[in-house]
Order: sequence, then C-alpha cells, then structure tokens
Amino acid sequence: MQTIFFENKPRIIATGTIAGPKECAGVVGKFVDKALSDDMFGESTYEKAECKMLTYAIRKAIENGGEREENIDLLISGDLLNQIISASFSARDFDFPFLGVYSACSTLSESFALSAMMVNAGYFQKIVAGTGSHFSSAERQYRYPLELGNTRPPQSQWTVTGAGSALIAKSGSSVAIMSATLGKVVDFGITDVNNMGAAMAPSACDTILNHLRDTGRKASDYDLIITGDLGALGSRILKDLTWEKGVDIQKNHVDCGEIIYNVIEDEFQGGSGAGCSAVVFNSYIYDKLRRGELKRVLLCATGALLSTVSSGQGESIPCIAHAVSIELV
Amino acid sequence: MQTIFFENKPRIIATGTIAGPKECAGVVGKFVDKALSDDMFGESTYEKAECKMLTYAIRKAIENGGEREENIDLLISGDLLNQIISASFSARDFDFPFLGVYSACSTLSESFALSAMMVNAGYFQKIVAGTGSHFSSAERQYRYPLELGNTRPPQSQWTVTGAGSALIAKSGSSVAIMSATLGKVVDFGITDVNNMGAAMAPSACDTILNHLRDTGRKASDYDLIITGDLGALGSRILKDLTWEKGVDIQKNHVDCGEIIYNVIEDEFQGGSGAGCSAVVFNSYIYDKLRRGELKRVLLCATGALLSTVSSGQGESIPCIAHAVSIELV
Repeated sequence: MQTIFFENKPRIIATGTIAGPKECAGVVGKFVDKALSDDMFGESTYEKAECKMLTYAIRKAIENGGEREENIDLLISGDLLNQIISASFSARDFDFPFLGVYSACSTLSESFALSAMMVNAGYFQKIVAGTGSHFSSAERQYRYPLELGNTRPPQSQWTVTGAGSALIAKSGSSVAIMSATLGKVVDFGITDVNNMGAAMAPSACDTILNHLRDTGRKASDYDLIITGDLGALGSRILKDLTWEKGVDIQKNHVDCGEIIYNVIEDEFQGGSGAGCSAVVFNSYIYDKLRRGELKRVLLCATGALLSTVSSGQGESIPCIAHAVSIELV
Repeated sequence: MQTIFFENKPRIIATGTIAGPKECAGVVGKFVDKALSDDMFGESTYEKAECKMLTYAIRKAIENGGEREENIDLLISGDLLNQIISASFSARDFDFPFLGVYSACSTLSESFALSAMMVNAGYFQKIVAGTGSHFSSAERQYRYPLELGNTRPPQSQWTVTGAGSALIAKSGSSVAIMSATLGKVVDFGITDVNNMGAAMAPSACDTILNHLRDTGRKASDYDLIITGDLGALGSRILKDLTWEKGVDIQKNHVDCGEIIYNVIEDEFQGGSGAGCSAVVFNSYIYDKLRRGELKRVLLCATGALLSTVSSGQGESIPCIAHAVSIELV
C-alpha cells in the first residue's frame, strides 16, 4: 500500500502564485496573483529572481489565507537549483521552521503530501508548501549558457518561470487533500536529457495505477487527473501506457506543461520545471476547485531525478511521481 | 512550538553503516558493518561509489533488522550531491516508495524526524532513513578538482566518506524517537565557505534552545547532546553560544565531526558531510544505546544551505539544524 488516507481532511485554504511574462500570456495569466513584466523581478541574477518569486508566493499564500506570518508553523519547499538554494534562501526570510525537500518537478505534490500528513496527524496547524523555477537559471544549470543561443530539439520543453504555494490547515475552505500516494523511482532507460516527457511518463503511470488500486477508485471517478510537466509528447505516452494497463484517462487527463503556454513557439512540447505544476495548480486549477467547477482532482506531479553529472557519467534518467487527491468536501 | 511529541514511541530497530579507510582508522572503525579498504568501492567514479555506499547502508539496515525488502514501506533519503543523485539512484534499486529530502548535513535528523512522524501516525509501518557523503565527490563539486592539490585552510573540515541508515518501525527495539524539533533557517552572515562550523553553530544553538523550551527539559537531562559536523571550532562556538543563553552543555555535548577522526592530519577541524552524523550515530552511538550505556541523547545534525552559485553571487551561508530526541524506553 503506497497510499495514505487523511480522515481529518486537511484543507488548502489559500494559494499564492507569480509567473513570468511568457507564462502569463497563456491560461494562467488571469489567475496568478502577480504577472511579471520582467522575469528578472528587479534582481541582478536569475537565481535571485527565482528565490524572490518563491518568497513572494509563500508570503502571498499566507496573506490570501488571512493569516499572519507569526501563526505559520512550517514551510515545506524545494526547487531545481543545486542544493535547493531558492527554497533555503526564501526560508531565511521567515521566522518559522523549514523542511527542505527534493523531488525535481514533483516537489509540489511531495510538499502537499507531507503537509497533509502533518496537519492530519495534528503535528502542526498551518503549513505553507510550495516551489518554483526559472527558465534562465535552469537553462544555465542543466544545459548551456543562454548566451550560446543553442538550438533546442523538438522534443524539448521550456522551464516555467514562476512559483506557487499553498497554505494548508485543519479548516478554512472546502478544498481538502484526501489521500496521498507516494511514488517509487521508475527508470525506463531513457538517456535523452531533452526528452523528459518520455522519461517521466512511466513513473506517472505507475503512481496513478497504484493510487487507483489502493483507493479502489476508477480513473473516471476524477474530474481531472493532472500531471506536472510531461508536456504534449509525454502526456500522449502516459495515455498510451495507462490504456495498455486497461485504464482509460483519455478524457480526463491534462498535463500542466501541455496547457501552460498558449502559443507553441520554441517551447515545443510545452512547459516543465517545478514551477509548472506549482503555478498551474495553485492558480487556474485551485480557482476552479474553489468555484466548484472541479470537484475531485488527482494531482500527480512528476520529477526527473537526473543531474548533469549522472547524465555525463552515462546514467539513464530515474523518475518519480507523487499523487495527492484533492477534493471538495 | 517547533517540537512534535511521538506518543507511540517509534523505534529505531536496526542500522546499517559503511565507511572509508580514513574514517575506519578512527572511533567508528569497530562499529560499522563494512569498513572499506578502497574508497572507490569497486566503482569507476566517486559519485557511483557514494551511491553504492548508501545503497549498502540501506540494504544492511533492513537485513540487520531481520526484515525483507518487500516489507519496507518507504525510503526517506537525501545527500549533498546536486539533485541528490546518490539518494535517487539508490532508490532506483528498491521496489518501495521514495521521498527525497535536502537539508545538507542535517539530512539524517530531518529523515529521522519525518520517519518518526509517519510511523507514529500509523501512515507506514517500516521506513528506512539514511544518508551519506564522499570526500572526493564533495570536494570536486563544492571546491576544487582534487588533481589541483589545493592547500586547505586550518578552519576547514574533511568530508566523511561513508553512509548510514536506520530502520524505523512501530516496535522491535527499546531505542525510541520520542520527539523532533524542526529548525529555522539561521544566517549569522558568515561568508567563509571553509568555516562551516562557525556558520552552523548558531543554528544548532537555536534548535537546541527551542527544543529545551518546548520540552521543558534541561540540557543535563540528556546523556549526550550530539551535533552533526560542527567540527572542533564550531563545537567550541556552540558551547559558548549556549552558555551565553544560560544553558551549559560543556559536559554532555559531543560533535560527530570532532570525534570521527582519531589523528588530525589534514582534516583540521574534523569531519563534515551528511555521512558524518550518519556513520557516527548509526554505528558508535546506536551501539551505546542498544547496550544501555546511553539512555537519552539529543541528535541535532546541522546543515549549511549554501551552493557554489549562492557563494559566488556574494551570499552568506544560511544554516539549519533539526533535532530528534532518542531514548531508551
């Protein structure tokens, strides 16, 4: 059994989101708390801009929840940068404890799962969980200096510039985290670091199938099954993989990476990065839950657990997906 | 309140440890499950050797606990390498879920705290928590290529080559995790990346004082207050800082980094790295608990949350310490 059930129904009482100009030209533009016109956000480096976005999203979730910082018990966060410096340096700005996590682009659902566990057990009352990413800091850390102007292959995705966080508490809204399914590391031997969607799809499939098995539910019990950043190609692979296992998610599956950009110019397969599901879920999807337009969603963010060193040493890409069931109660 | 109390007394039922030749010349040599004569451990790169050590420690804890891998519910792990590849690639070898964490050298106590939370709440029955590090992979990632033969300043420490993990379950031994105090990020403005002890000591002080406040205990209630890798200098600073706050830990404080190496040649202030507390606690200290020679210890591992990028951009070093109270029951 990989699934935990939360009988006390911990609630997502508010969210905070911020995104860059390219992201805000798309579906999330109308829903984020702050749409940046300049992705430097007034900072001198991309890394500092990424950190400032995350700090903004954390503070905004607290504010939107009508809470004060001194009442917050814990921050759970992580990001893509080496040694998760965005999260750690954000945490420095707050006077409450911090738990650092790393799960690549599945950081949002790992943070949500941990927060729900702790609130459900009564360990803490109010927890902020969130993450973010920045195209330019990710690009120069994982790939090439931007100044090189490297050509991007058609299977590649575009790291989202943005951050999103949620305030999770015992009560205060009707949006509850009802269960969490923790994923196993799945490696299908993909070595193409530009094809993250193909690498991550099998891990999403594994976690979704395990979630349905553990909960005794059908895929159609969910209004939406949301993955994090498989992109268009990865999303298609996931639909095929689940179909082969007798589970049909054709009609109710949506991938945050696939929908975040309206115009596909050089984003190719869509968005990626820890900020992708963080922005899309905490703005667009959360709004639909609050309005009752969605009643039950499975948020299954996916992460590729590689590094430049592991790929340089010839390793394939191990991936993981954690899922949380978020429901109107 | 930063402290969680575990009324169901989750137990550390077994540990698994491995360490390099330099480490095994010291106090842990007689207590580790495997003493390596070659720190490459038969692998072609330092990173692969680090990962293999962690995998060994995980498997050994399960075996020493008389358990089988198919009965394990979860692995909680992280390490110092970019994108925690040692933990992720270790997790790939096991068929149970994985939660990745990052808390630099305080990863052991963060993992222990999370494991105790989940076992105490009944979410999972058997969890393995562990971490490790390798001198050579850390040196080339954080500092300089080894081939350069750079001189090390006297305030520096030596990253431990080793790994340690523990099997945490509802019952099965008399060594219990009774509470966990989650730390805040503390930054005293230290920018010298060679002086980690000075950077981390204030965070250890903060967490220890908060632990004593939350639990209503005195420092003398503990047989030992163990920090992770402050080293000789950092340990002295911690004693001074707590003394200034009216808390005397002169007699019962010990730092894993200070005691791991017998002969101080070029380790200067002693050991560091996520593997430092992982090896010392899970071998030497755990053995003393099992024998009843220690009855109550506070394990407060400390982490420096910097990266080469943050330091390169002129940032100081934010630090954190998480504490778990481990007691004979």
